[in-house]
This record gives sequence, structure tokens and C-alpha cells, in this order.
Amino acid sequence: MRIWFIGAYGIVSTTAMAGGKLIEQGRIDTTGLVSSLPQFEGIEKYAPLNFEFGGHEVRKADNAYVAALQHWEQNRHFEKEHLEEVRSELEQIRASRGTAINCGSGVQALGELDILENEKKTLAEIVEQLEKDLKSFADDDTVVINSASTEPLLNYSEKYHGSLDGFEEMIENDVKEHASASILYAYVALKNRIPYGNFTPSAGSSIPALKELAIEKKVPHAGNDGKTGETLVKTTLAPMFAYRNLKVLGWMSYNILGDLDGLVLSHRENKESKVISKDKVLEKIYGYSPFSITQIEYFPSLVDNKTAFDFIHFQGFMGTQMKFYFIWDAIDAIVAAPLTIDIARFLLFAKKKGLYGVIKEMGFFFKSPMDTNNVNTHSQFVELVEWFRENI
Amino acid sequence: MRIWFIGAYGIVSTTAMAGGKLIEQGRIDTTGLVSSLPQFEGIEKYAPLNFEFGGHEVRKADNAYVAALQHWEQNRHFEKEHLEEVRSELEQIRASRGTAINCGSGVQALGELDILENEKKTLAEIVEQLEKDLKSFADDDTVVINSASTEPLLNYSEKYHGSLDGFEEMIENDVKEHASASILYAYVALKNRIPYGNFTPSAGSSIPALKELAIEKKVPHAGNDGKTGETLVKTTLAPMFAYRNLKVLGWMSYNILGDLDGLVLSHRENKESKVISKDKVLEKIYGYSPFSITQIEYFPSLVDNKTAFDFIHFQGFMGTQMKFYFIWDAIDAIVAAPLTIDIARFLLFAKKKGLYGVIKEMGFFFKSPMDTNNVNTHSQFVELVEWFRENI
Amino acid sequence: MRIWFIGAYGIVSTTAMAGGKLIEQGRIDTTGLVSSLPQFEGIEKYAPLNFEFGGHEVRKADNAYVAALQHWEQNRHFEKEHLEEVRSELEQIRASRGTAINCGSGVQALGELDILENEKKTLAEIVEQLEKDLKSFADDDTVVINSASTEPLLNYSEKYHGSLDGFEEMIENDVKEHASASILYAYVALKNRIPYGNFTPSAGSSIPALKELAIEKKVPHAGNDGKTGETLVKTTLAPMFAYRNLKVLGWMSYNILGDLDGLVLSHRENKESKVISKDKVLEKIYGYSPFSITQIEYFPSLVDNKTAFDFIHFQGFMGTQMKFYFIWDAIDAIVAAPLTIDIARFLLFAKKKGLYGVIKEMGFFFKSPMDTNNVNTHSQFVELVEWFRENI
Amino acid sequence: MRIWFIGAYGIVSTTAMAGGKLIEQGRIDTTGLVSSLPQFEGIEKYAPLNFEFGGHEVRKADNAYVAALQHWEQNRHFEKEHLEEVRSELEQIRASRGTAINCGSGVQALGELDILENEKKTLAEIVEQLEKDLKSFADDDTVVINSASTEPLLNYSEKYHGSLDGFEEMIENDVKEHASASILYAYVALKNRIPYGNFTPSAGSSIPALKELAIEKKVPHAGNDGKTGETLVKTTLAPMFAYRNLKVLGWMSYNILGDLDGLVLSHRENKESKVISKDKVLEKIYGYSPFSITQIEYFPSLVDNKTAFDFIHFQGFMGTQMKFYFIWDAIDAIVAAPLTIDIARFLLFAKKKGLYGVIKEMGFFFKSPMDTNNVNTHSQFVELVEWFRENI
Ligand SMILES: NC(=O)c1ccc[n+]([C@@H]2O[C@H](COP(=O)([O-])OP(=O)(O)OC[C@H]3O[C@@H](n4cnc5c(N)ncnc54)[C@H](O)[C@@H]3O)[C@@H](O)[C@H]2O)c1
Ligand SMILES: NC(=O)c1ccc[n+]([C@@H]2O[C@H](COP(=O)([O-])OP(=O)(O)OC[C@H]3O[C@@H](n4cnc5c(N)ncnc54)[C@H](O)[C@@H]3O)[C@@H](O)[C@H]2O)c1
Ligand SMILES: NC(=O)c1ccc[n+]([C@@H]2O[C@H](COP(=O)([O-])OP(=O)(O)OC[C@H]3O[C@@H](n4cnc5c(N)ncnc54)[C@H](O)[C@@H]3O)[C@@H](O)[C@H]2O)c1
Ligand SMILES: NC(=O)c1ccc[n+]([C@@H]2O[C@H](COP(=O)([O-])OP(=O)(O)OC[C@H]3O[C@@H](n4cnc5c(N)ncnc54)[C@H](O)[C@@H]3O)[C@@H](O)[C@H]2O)c1
Ligand code: NA
Ligand code: NA
Repeated sequence: MRIWFIGAYGIVSTTAMAGGKLIEQGRIDTTGLVSSLPQFEGIEKYAPLNFEFGGHEVRKADNAYVAALQHWEQNRHFEKEHLEEVRSELEQIRASRGTAINCGSGVQALGELDILENEKKTLAEIVEQLEKDLKSFADDDTVVINSASTEPLLNYSEKYHGSLDGFEEMIENDVKEHASASILYAYVALKNRIPYGNFTPSAGSSIPALKELAIEKKVPHAGNDGKTGETLVKTTLAPMFAYRNLKVLGWMSYNILGDLDGLVLSHRENKESKVISKDKVLEKIYGYSPFSITQIEYFPSLVDNKTAFDFIHFQGFMGTQMKFYFIWDAIDAIVAAPLTIDIARFLLFAKKKGLYGVIKEMGFFFKSPMDTNNVNTHSQFVELVEWFRENI
Repeated sequence: MRIWFIGAYGIVSTTAMAGGKLIEQGRIDTTGLVSSLPQFEGIEKYAPLNFEFGGHEVRKADNAYVAALQHWEQNRHFEKEHLEEVRSELEQIRASRGTAINCGSGVQALGELDILENEKKTLAEIVEQLEKDLKSFADDDTVVINSASTEPLLNYSEKYHGSLDGFEEMIENDVKEHASASILYAYVALKNRIPYGNFTPSAGSSIPALKELAIEKKVPHAGNDGKTGETLVKTTLAPMFAYRNLKVLGWMSYNILGDLDGLVLSHRENKESKVISKDKVLEKIYGYSPFSITQIEYFPSLVDNKTAFDFIHFQGFMGTQMKFYFIWDAIDAIVAAPLTIDIARFLLFAKKKGLYGVIKEMGFFFKSPMDTNNVNTHSQFVELVEWFRENI
Repeated sequence: MRIWFIGAYGIVSTTAMAGGKLIEQGRIDTTGLVSSLPQFEGIEKYAPLNFEFGGHEVRKADNAYVAALQHWEQNRHFEKEHLEEVRSELEQIRASRGTAINCGSGVQALGELDILENEKKTLAEIVEQLEKDLKSFADDDTVVINSASTEPLLNYSEKYHGSLDGFEEMIENDVKEHASASILYAYVALKNRIPYGNFTPSAGSSIPALKELAIEKKVPHAGNDGKTGETLVKTTLAPMFAYRNLKVLGWMSYNILGDLDGLVLSHRENKESKVISKDKVLEKIYGYSPFSITQIEYFPSLVDNKTAFDFIHFQGFMGTQMKFYFIWDAIDAIVAAPLTIDIARFLLFAKKKGLYGVIKEMGFFFKSPMDTNNVNTHSQFVELVEWFRENI
Repeated sequence: MRIWFIGAYGIVSTTAMAGGKLIEQGRIDTTGLVSSLPQFEGIEKYAPLNFEFGGHEVRKADNAYVAALQHWEQNRHFEKEHLEEVRSELEQIRASRGTAINCGSGVQALGELDILENEKKTLAEIVEQLEKDLKSFADDDTVVINSASTEPLLNYSEKYHGSLDGFEEMIENDVKEHASASILYAYVALKNRIPYGNFTPSAGSSIPALKELAIEKKVPHAGNDGKTGETLVKTTLAPMFAYRNLKVLGWMSYNILGDLDGLVLSHRENKESKVISKDKVLEKIYGYSPFSITQIEYFPSLVDNKTAFDFIHFQGFMGTQMKFYFIWDAIDAIVAAPLTIDIARFLLFAKKKGLYGVIKEMGFFFKSPMDTNNVNTHSQFVELVEWFRENI
């Protein structure tokens, strides 16, 4: 199958590319890949474990190997040998020039960008070029995954985002202030009947206009925001307190990570929501909003080794208070990369099975799953398995 | 409803008694009580929240208040006021003299015991006396809960434990070496059609003879061993690694607690299974046996404040290793006590609905649930809810 | 001896009062009291363990018992019996009306204040009244301890704070914008030859004008800011990395606590120094400034149970990176209260031995010790012992 | 300078060799090396940072590079490049055949041993051969470091270990049951006036006979057992509780590690001292013996990544109990290796300064420092610095 990564030279994308090729060559096993669990037997027929990769990027690099090597130098996130084993395959992956429209200062700070708007293109011209790139790569077995840097909140407009007509009017009339890279990429994918998965919190395909397009084109999509670290543990553990009728008095989630992603996210979080006292995930699980702290801070020496410190203060029988602490010490891209492949595989499976629109049964993979309130990891998994079994 | 506790003066039992009466009087809310969750609406009709308590004991104490106060002095496990609020109710609870047959040196070490066998009674006479005590208390809404000290492993005999006939032969012929207190208590309960819940790892009703009796008498029972601390967290969290196809390289569970229970359990564990390298719970969840350490040590100053340290070493995509740590800092009796009430309520519900034999859908409450391999907290909860909804 | 607490109804002060009387009556041992260690044998002669307490306050309460009880209701920070044992003694302690001049919105938020400036007094009149209160209590064995709420940073003026003449000019001319409660209290104490200890980060006696006054009056003083929780551990542990020539790549210190102090401090810290990337304590120990996070957040259910999460990322031989984590789970007032008594005792000892000015050998007790760069807990302790031994 | 390692192909020794050569070549900095701190300026004159290495071994390997590579394959304890940078230097280091006399089943389990006693040599012949090997390598600037596997407890004999005469009688009369490898190696070193440092808990030079020899030969020695992990932190932190007069109610130290050392130590510890309820280090610091657990367990996937979990339960003012937790996540050999170089340097410095016998001021480096009760990391460091400054 073919995967087109938006953000092709990022650490998540390049790790997925390396890992995908290594699996294809039988050099590593499928640890980390949900879709390879026995529960999903039969998926190989629809989405086999061999890959071609392409993508859009805004940073210049010679090829995916060079980009991967830079990430490796900073992170040593896997054995160096593995990178060398797929060097030639990665060297052949060269990303197409993308757009960074309204991607904010975080993306601007990545360095001198190599982007379509440098050529003063209109939205229509940008979209046309993106479409040309994608179509030159895509076959019937292609999925687009957005793993580009997180954009600022979309400047939402009911007029331009609320319906497909409005959206296309925005493009035609070149209304740049309401466009953003992620929605343009998603538009191009869906328009061409290519399933689209959004691994980031950016808007992507989650606006009404693009949900409408997906229905019209009968193409499946899923998102938003890969559930990898502290949220994964939280949505696994939080139900336990609910099942046992234990009252959560407070939940502290404190995350530190380095690298540019850390710096960017830290800025964003600080500005928007330094201390989020109502955590939506907890509210959905408990039906009430326990006091909650969710913070993310930059800690340079950790680079991509995101570390989360959680503390849960809870009350039991007869009012007695008790405590729970956890530390999650993981490599963000290592947890994330196989999920991008999983998302691509399940979307391709859905497409081949004639399913379309938001695949809400794929909520298992996302922090903010579209069109569902199910955030409990366990019931999400059960839902995913049942959905798969019903459709296979 | 009425609950008869084996081990009536223990910390779990007395906390359940105090809490039960406090709930009945509306002095505390139902935090900690699973059966009061909205999912179990309707249970009140079958097992209302008002209680009478009795039980068997082997230690002398004037009454349940005195026993509760002794536990309180050492543990301060809830607000002192609460104990005083139900003082007169607890003072009226006086346990009957029980049996400590083959309960091992741990129970002998509890001090001078006040037990039936002191009077050189035969098994038949002991059983007769236990039955008399229980029948003088029990009505149609009574449940027996075993929350006595843990016995040593039963000296299992196919002849005497393998069938009801053999069991009754053992009693008649006074074959003391194959009897144990917990199986005698369980026998008496089931024989009298009183539902029986085993909160301890002792044999209780889990031998074939007594399963047979439960079927014959059409009475429900459930067990073994309340799932309260580290195992609760483990069976909640472990599935997450399975769902994500992450490979567990090792799982360390190190528990410390004080009080006599701690000392006793520590001895037992040390002798039998100091380092259990194959943890059954993990094997059931993963299908393979990760390297695993499960230890429990005595730490006197913590008394009933059981603290668990867990470390999970796991492998992700491309072979990269990652780490997870947690600390559970809870009060054992506070987590346990409401569950004994829950077990009693669900068993009474089952009885009234005509259900009998092992209620395997109650596995949610147990570390070693009878007749099921489902040890995943989440699917156990789902199973419990579905079972309740189907039968209500 | 006599101790006059500024902030007499606070949790630290009332805990010190209760504990002090309990020690005097032999009801508790001296655990927590540094000055009772064998190394300080002989101090009893100068500062015996019997106490009279008084103080200034800005919040209304009937007496110290009532104030202590309020704190107890929220915190259960010690056995209730202890409070009752000294109830009558605490009921006799009634604080005098203080000043809250330039104490900021945090103090204003404590409720309706009962303060001298309500009567539109000039600075000179306020000082006169404070002096009158203090003199009516103080004898030759009296020490003033500032344990009032933390003030905002002093609006420093070289003219008014740089010399004693300037300071007194400020008072005479009623230059309120450069005054603050803590410096007025400190002035009154030192002027009357009463040793002064500053347990808070407020300016207190640390401005040049008051250091000059202490020298002129030959009275000892010490401060600032009691070293109780995370900083205590940090300044104990950090030297280990230095001794072993291990390079600290980053040090995260994340503190949560509830109660009003937590809320106030959180605000202050957030505004001034949300992420302090250069931690002065670490710089003094290492000679370089490792990347560092120091944060304090409000977590209401913990009340005074301050919990600190620290993570140290360090580099060893051949560049290999390693990790250290700690969790400090303590009751702030319990760690703090005995130190206020210690500070009072050592200051009284110093006075009786004819020592005066900043007693920099008392740095062991403070987060920001005056006139010294020694922040290493161990060398501070050695220094304290040696100073005591030389002067006894 | 020259260092002769007993256990030359172990992970500590080979890491020290690689690191030593890398420092010599300026390829890495001196992080981790205590002797390179500014406090020890001047040591370079006596023990410069250039090295020749040799040693005794019992396992066959072509050379130190091959041995180092095997450790690296399992541990990735430093950057692979570093190993290649000094490959040719390490390839030239070929260990001499040693003795494993009375080294126990742990050492036997290392595989087929290549040892002198295979040739049925007498003790006298073994000693002669060891001496020959060492003398062929040693110059005036040579130090012997014992970093071989830990031996079982010495079968102590007053006759043979209590005096030098007895010791030499043991050799002459070939009394093998009272010999052990570590004391023979130590004998050979000291006899030839070569300073000897014992990084292991084995007897080494700590018996009276060899202390006598060191005095007679005027040669310095030091030991036992490198203080690297949990004990380092414990002896740094424990004094804090003493300084603050906080009462330690219990201290739990739970260590896990993999590799053969882990397996061996685990066995040994299990047998001798599974739960050591009186921890000597704590007793020396506190003057009383808090309840204490010290355990070490095998956890294979961690290999040399020793992880320690500590929990301290302590009591403060007014009897209130509080808690402290820490996790030490380090690479054992990385912490250990530079210390072996430090010990060698300080011993050489001592020799050149005419100091001899046990250098008790070097206790900073050891878990069980000889001839001193000072186990406090901080006062040990102060003592080391003062000793150095006085003698330079
Ligand atoms: N565990 C995880 O790593 C994880 C989990 C959930 C979500 N995410 C999200 O995945 C995304 C990628 O994370 P990462 O760690 O790989 O970050 P990264 O910074 O390494 O990679 C992002 C890449 O996207 C490129 N890019 C930025 N804007 C673009 C645009 N408009 N068009 C095309 N390319 C663009 C960047 O140049 C960069 O190469 C982020 O949005 C992150 O928030 C990651
Ligand atoms: N969280 C928990 O506390 C928890 C969880 C799971 C299982 N359990 C089990 O529950 C049981 C009770 O725990 P606890 O903490 O209350 O212990 P406990 O020691 O406070 O109480 C046990 C009581 O049983 C009595 N007893 C002992 N043998 C008896 C016998 N043969 N007949 C009648 N009474 C007898 C003892 O005298 C004591 O009063 C234990 O078996 C324990 O392993 C407890
Ligand atoms: N571990 C610790 O608790 C600790 C450690 C270091 C420093 N401190 C400092 O000690 C001080 C007291 O802490 P606390 O926990 O007792 O706080 P608290 O809020 O319980 O007590 C402070 C008291 O000071 C009173 N007050 C405020 N402004 C005043 C003024 N101008 N004059 C007289 N009284 C005034 C308040 O009304 C209150 O009763 C704080 O400044 C805190 O930062 C505490
Ligand atoms: N942080 C640490 O690593 C640390 C700390 C304190 C003490 N130590 C001690 O240092 C020693 C070495 O530790 P390691 O991790 O390098 O272990 P290791 O097993 O990697 O190395 C020990 C080496 O000694 C060799 N050996 C065994 N017996 C011998 C003998 N009689 N003569 C010569 N060689 C012999 C073995 O073959 C092996 O190559 C151990 O005793 C350990 O307890 C290590
Ligand atoms: Na805790
Ligand atoms: Na870690």
C-alpha cells in the first residue's frame, strides 16, 4: 500500500517509513502495530505490509534518509543499524513542496521554508499543485496521513468551513485568512477519494465542509490527534476509578519533552490553556469534572523522550483519601509511528469495504476522536475489534 | 439485608459494618460502593442499603465496636467521628465462636483463640454449632462473606473435596486433616441456601464438592480473593500494552504493608512463592508470560496503608525499550470493605433472580475469579453490567 | 522563652504554638526540633523549652485555639487530641491587630482584614502601635518570628531602604508606597533589641537599613524563607552530583499544594517566574546553571499536604545519560513549625552570647540565607554545629 | 599511569579502559571523574591522565576489545563510536590467566574458566605466577584494582588471616580452604609495593594479615565495594533526616538489575540476607536502627541498567507521618568505571606522598569503607578534599 505523509520529514513520518520498510523486509517484527494483532487477522488482504511512501514537506532536505538521520542524531530512538538497512529505500523518498499557510510562528521558526506560497500562488493554484503532486503518487491503495507540525486553532468561519460550497468559494475567491494548510491537504485527499487520517490536533478533515465532501465522495477519514502518551495511560486508568465508584479529587498531568515539537507545543499550551482545570477526557469518563492540571513543558535534554508525571488524589469509602502516582518514560515517535501505519491500514480496509465518512470506530487511535464520546481505551478497542469483525 | 462475616472482628469486616450503618443512616455517601453506580439502578429493590450484621470469629472481643476501635487506634483509616456515630449499633454486634481448624501458624499467632475445637468437638459437632449460629441470625435476605485471615493452601484430597458425598463423609468420619475452617463455613452457608462470597484466597466454596452443593441447593456463590490494590491496577493497565501490541519485557510488583495481615502474608508468600516468575494474571492477559516479580513484604509502620511499587519494562516499534512506573498508596481496608457489601448485594440479587452456582460474571471483584479466564478489569466490569441488565 | 509571631493565626504559627506547649508539658517528644539534637546540648540554658506566645495578625479570630482548629478541620495535620490537650493555653493567646500595608491582593483576599491602617493611621502611628503591642509582651527572652503571608516583592528604594536614616525618614514623612508590613515589623523588633527571624520570603530585615539597625542595636537576626520541602531535598541531593562530577542536564521541580497559601503562591509565581530557567540554588551548588524548571501549582484537595515531583536528568562517564526521580509527600506546616522554634532558640542563644547582625551560620534554616552563598544542607549543618560549639 | 585490573574483561574494567583511553586522547571530557574536579587540582602531576592497562582474568577472550564489545552488545552503555575510536588500543590489552580459588558457584557459572588451578598448581605456585604476571607489567606508577566478580564470604581463620606470618604459612602449606582469589591478588600487589584498591565486597586487602603487610611495605590501599547506586543516594539523603531530627520509621530499598552480576548477587543476597532488617549504613548515620528492607532482584531485560526504588517513611513534629520516594535509573558500569580510575589515581598520589596503610580518607568511594565509621557522602567528600589539600 502507499502512504502519503503530510510532514514527510518529521520524526513520526520518517520513523514510520523506516519501520514500514523494515517490516516489509522482515528485519523487525510487528511489535507496536495494532493492526497486526490476531484480532485483526485478515487485514493483510486489504492492506498488506508492504509500502511505498511519499509526502509533502515545508522544510528542505535531500531525502527522507537525510531527514531521518538528523532526527536519529538527536534522539537515538532506535538502533542505528536499522536506519542503514533501509538507507537506499529512504533515499529515494523525496517530499514535494507543501504549503504552510496559517501554520503560525511555530512552523515559521523551523527555518527557511520551502513552500508553494513563496511563489505568490493563489489558494486555487496551491490546491492545484498539491493535487498534482498527490495524484502523481497515488494509486487505489493510497492513504494520506497528516503528521505535520500542529497548526494554531483554525480561524473558524461558518461561511467557508460550514459547507462544501462555502469551502470551494473560499478557494476560488482566495480568502487566505480562513484557509490553513491542514484543511487544504485534507480537501485534496478526500476530493480524490483518498482516505485521510489526521494524526495531529490541527483541523484537517474535521470541519463540516470536509465531512460533507467525504460523504459525497464516499471516502473514509479519521482523526484527530494520535493518542500516544499520558492521555493513553489516563484513558486506560481513569475508568478504573469510575468502575469502583471512587471519587477523583484531583488529577495532575505534567509532561516534559524536548525537541522543537516540545518547544512549540509548550508555547501553544502556555498561551491557550496553561492550566486546564477542566479536562475533557476526564469529564467524558466521569460525568463530572475533577480538578485537573494538564501541563506540558519544554525540557531540552530529553529531546523526544516524553516523560509524564501523573498524580491522582482520590476518595474512597467513608471519605478516606488515597493516592496514585505514575511516570511514563517513553519515546514519543516510537509510540506514534506504528499508529500512523495502523490508521492508514484501517482506512484502506474501510474504503475497500465500502465504508465512508468519519470512521468513528477508529477512535482508539485518537486523543480527540471525531463524532464520538467514547474515550475509554478499552471500550474503544472493543469497538474497533467488533467493527473490524463485522466488516471483514 | 443481613451480612454474616466470617472474621467478624477483622479490619475489613468492621469497616464494612461501620460503613454499612453509616450509609443506612445517610451519614456518608456511597463512594466506593460499586453496586450504587447508576449502571446498577434497580438493585435497591433486591438488596436495599440497610443492614444487620453478625458473624463468626476466633479472637475474643467484647463486640464489633471494641474490635473496630482497636483497628482504628492503629490505622486512623477514617474519621473518628464516624466510628462514634455508629457506636451503639456496633456494640450490639457480638460474633459467635468459630473454628480455626487448619488455619495455620499465622492464625495461631493472633493470640489465645476462642474456638470450638477447644472443646474437643468433632467435625460434625463443629459444623452443627456453626449451623446453629448462622441459622439463629439468617433470614431470606442473608449472605455470608468470608473475610477471615487467609488460610494455608488446602491439603487437597480428591476423595474428600472432589464430591459432595466425599465431603460429607469427611465430616461424618471426622477426617480433620482434610478439613479447613473456610470450607466448613462455606458448607454451612450453602447447605442452608445462603449465598456465599469468598473475599479471601482460602479455599472456601471453590472445591468441587461445594460447587456441587451450590448447584444442588440452587444457591449462588462467588470468589476468590478481593481485587483491591496492585492487582486491580495491574489488570486495568496490562491490557493497554496488549491492545497496542507492545511487548512486556518484565513487570515488577513490589508490595509493602504492616499489621498482622502483612506479617502473615509475607511469611506465606516468602515460603511458597517468593519470586513468582510467571504471573498468572499477566499470562491470561498476554497469552505469554513476561518475566515478572510479585513480592509482598512486611513494613510495620505502614500498618494497613498498603503501598505498591510497580515497574513495567516494555518494548515498542523497532525494538525500542521504554518504561512505566506506578505507586499505589491506599488503605487496604477502605478499598476492600465496600466490595464485601457489593458482593453480598449482587449475590442476594442473584438468589432472588433464581441464579445459582458460581456467578462468574462477578469476577470483577476477585483476584482469582472462579470458572473464568477473564481477569481484565474493563471487560469484567462490562460483563457485570451486562449480566445485571439482563437479569434485572 | 517568649515568641512573638507575625501572622499569629496562620497554620505554621498555630502549629508551633500547639507543639511548643505540648513539648513544654512533656506530651510529645522533640522530633522535628533541630535545636534538641545532641549536637546542640547546652542550648536549654539559654533558650529553655517553655514558651509564651503572642503575635500580630490581620485576620480576626477569637484566639489561637479557634484559629488552630480551623486549620485542623481542613488539614488533620496532627492528632486531634493534641489540640485539645493545649486548648486552654491556646485560648489565652490573642493576637494584636497588625498592619497589611502593601501586602498585595493575596492578603486582601484573605477576607475582611482587621488592620491598623483601617484607622487611617500614618506610618509613624502604625509603628508606634506595633511597638506598644510588642513591648507589652516582650521580656529579655523574647524573639520575633515572621510567619505571615508572603508579601509581593518590595518596591525597593535606595533612598528609603538603603540606610537607617532614610528608613526613619520614610516613616516620619509617611511615604507609604515604599513601606511594607514585614519591614515595619522587623524595624520595631530590632529597634527594641528583640532578635528577629524571617521565615518568609518577604523583605523583613534583609534591607540595608535594617541590617544597619541590627548592628547599631547589637541585636541578632536571620532569614529568609524557611527551607522545608523540595528545596531542602534539592540542596541535600544536588551536591552528590557535584561531588561525583556528574553533569546535571536538567532539573525539574514541580510542586503542588492546596489551601490559600497555595493559591496565593501560585499566583505570585505564575506572574513573576512561571518557568525559572535559572535556579539560583543549583547555580550556587554547581557553578553553572543547569536547565531547570521550578513550578508551584494549586491543587485544592491536598490542602497543606505539599507534594513535590522532581526529575533530574544527568550525564555520566563517556556521555551516558541517566535519570533520578523523587516524590516528597509531606505536611508543610509540620515540617515548618518546629523550625520557627529552632530559629527563635538559636537567635536567643546568639543574643545572650553577645552576637549580633545577620547570623549567617543559621543559613541551614533558610531557602535564601542572608549574606552567604552556602546553600548545601550538609555544610550548612556543619557550619551551624561549629558556630554553636564555638560560642557555647 | 598503569592500572592492573583483576577481572580485566568485566564490564566495569573494560568501560574504565575505554574511557581512560578516550580521555587520554581528548575524545571525551572528564565527566564522572571525581579526581578531575577543581578541588583536586594538582593531582595530574602525580597521576596524569594517560594510561596503560593490564590485568588478570578467568574467562577467555581474545582481548579487551572483544570483551568490551560483548558487554556493549548487551548494554549499549555508551555510544558505539567511542568503542571503535579506541579499538586498536583495547585490542592490545590481553589479560593474564588468573585464579578463581574459592570464588564460588557464581563464578563457576560464568562458563569454562581458564585458570591457574586447572594446572593443579599449589598456592605457592599460583602466587608465584600472579606475581610474575604483575611484575612484567608494573612500573613505579602502577596500581592494582580489584573489579572481579564478588566472591562468597571468606572462610575466615584467625590463624591464617590474622597475621602476615599466618598468611604466608597458609600459602606455603597450601591450605587452599582458607585461601580466596581476592586475598591472593591483594597479597601479590602489596608485597610488591603496588597500591591496591578493592572495588568489590570481596575480602581483598581487608584482613589483618594484609593490613600488616601494607604497613610493613609502606604501601597504601583502600576499599571495599564501590559506592555507586542506591547506597550512594541513601548515604547522601539519610543525613538530612538526622539533621532535621526527623525520625525514620522505615526505609525500603529495592534494587533490580539484569546481567550475570545481577543473577549472582541476587543469589548471594537471597541466601545471606534476603531482608536485612538492620541496615548498617543507616545505623551509622542515625545511631539507631530504623526498620529497613534491602533487597536486590534479578530483572533480565534491564541488563546493567540498575534501577533502585526507595521509600522512606518518617515522622515529624507532633508525631505526624510523612513519605519520601525515589527512583534511581542508572547504568551501573558507567557510574562505577570512572571511580576505579579515581581510586587508582588517589592511591598513586598517596604512595608518592609517602602515605601508606589503609587510606581511610578515601571512604567516599566505598560502600563499606575500611577503618572508619564515616558513611555520610558529604562528610566523606569534605574529608577527601581536606586530606588531599593537606598532602599536596
Ligand atoms: N507521539 C507523538 O509523537 C505524537 C502524538 C500525537 C500527535 N502528534 C503530532 O504529530 C505531528 C508530528 O509530530 P513530530 O514529532 O513528527 O514532529 P516533527 O516536528 O518532527 O515533524 C513535523 C514535520 O512536519 C513538517 N511540516 C510542518 N508544517 C507543515 C506543512 N504545513 N506541510 C507539510 N509539512 C509540514 C515539519 O517541517 C516537520 O518535518 C505533530 O503535529 C504532533 O503534535 C505526535
Ligand atoms: N484489601 C484488603 O484488605 C483485602 C483484599 C483481598 C483479600 N483480603 C483478605 O481479607 C481477609 C481479611 O483481611 P483483614 O485485613 O480484615 O484481616 P484481619 O486480620 O484484620 O481480619 C481477619 C479476621 O479474621 C479472624 N479470623 C481468623 N481466622 C478465623 C476463622 N477461622 N474463623 C473466624 N474468624 C477468623 C481474625 O481473628 C481477624 O479478626 C484476609 O484473608 C485478606 O487476605 C483483604
Ligand atoms: N513549610 C511551610 O509551611 C513554609 C515554608 C517556608 C516559608 N513559609 C512561609 O511562612 C508563611 C506562613 O505560612 P502558613 O502556611 O502559615 O500560611 P497561612 O496563610 O496559614 O498563615 C499566614 C498568616 O499570616 C497572616 N497575615 C498575613 N499578612 C499579615 C500581616 N501583614 N501581618 C500579620 N499577619 C498577617 C494571615 O492572616 C495568616 O493567618 C508564608 O509566608 C509562607 O510562605 C512556609
Ligand atoms: N556499579 C557497579 O558496577 C559496581 C559497584 C560496586 C561494586 N561492583 C563490583 O565490581 C565487580 C565487577 O562488576 P562488573 O559489573 O564489572 O561484573 P562483571 O561480571 O562484568 O565482571 C567481572 C569480571 O571478573 C572476572 N572474574 C571473576 N572472578 C575472577 C577472578 N577470580 N580473577 C580474575 N577475574 C575474575 C569475570 O570473568 C568478569 O570478567 C563486582 O564484584 C561488582 O560487585 C560493581
Ligand atoms: Na504518598
Ligand atoms: Na526512567
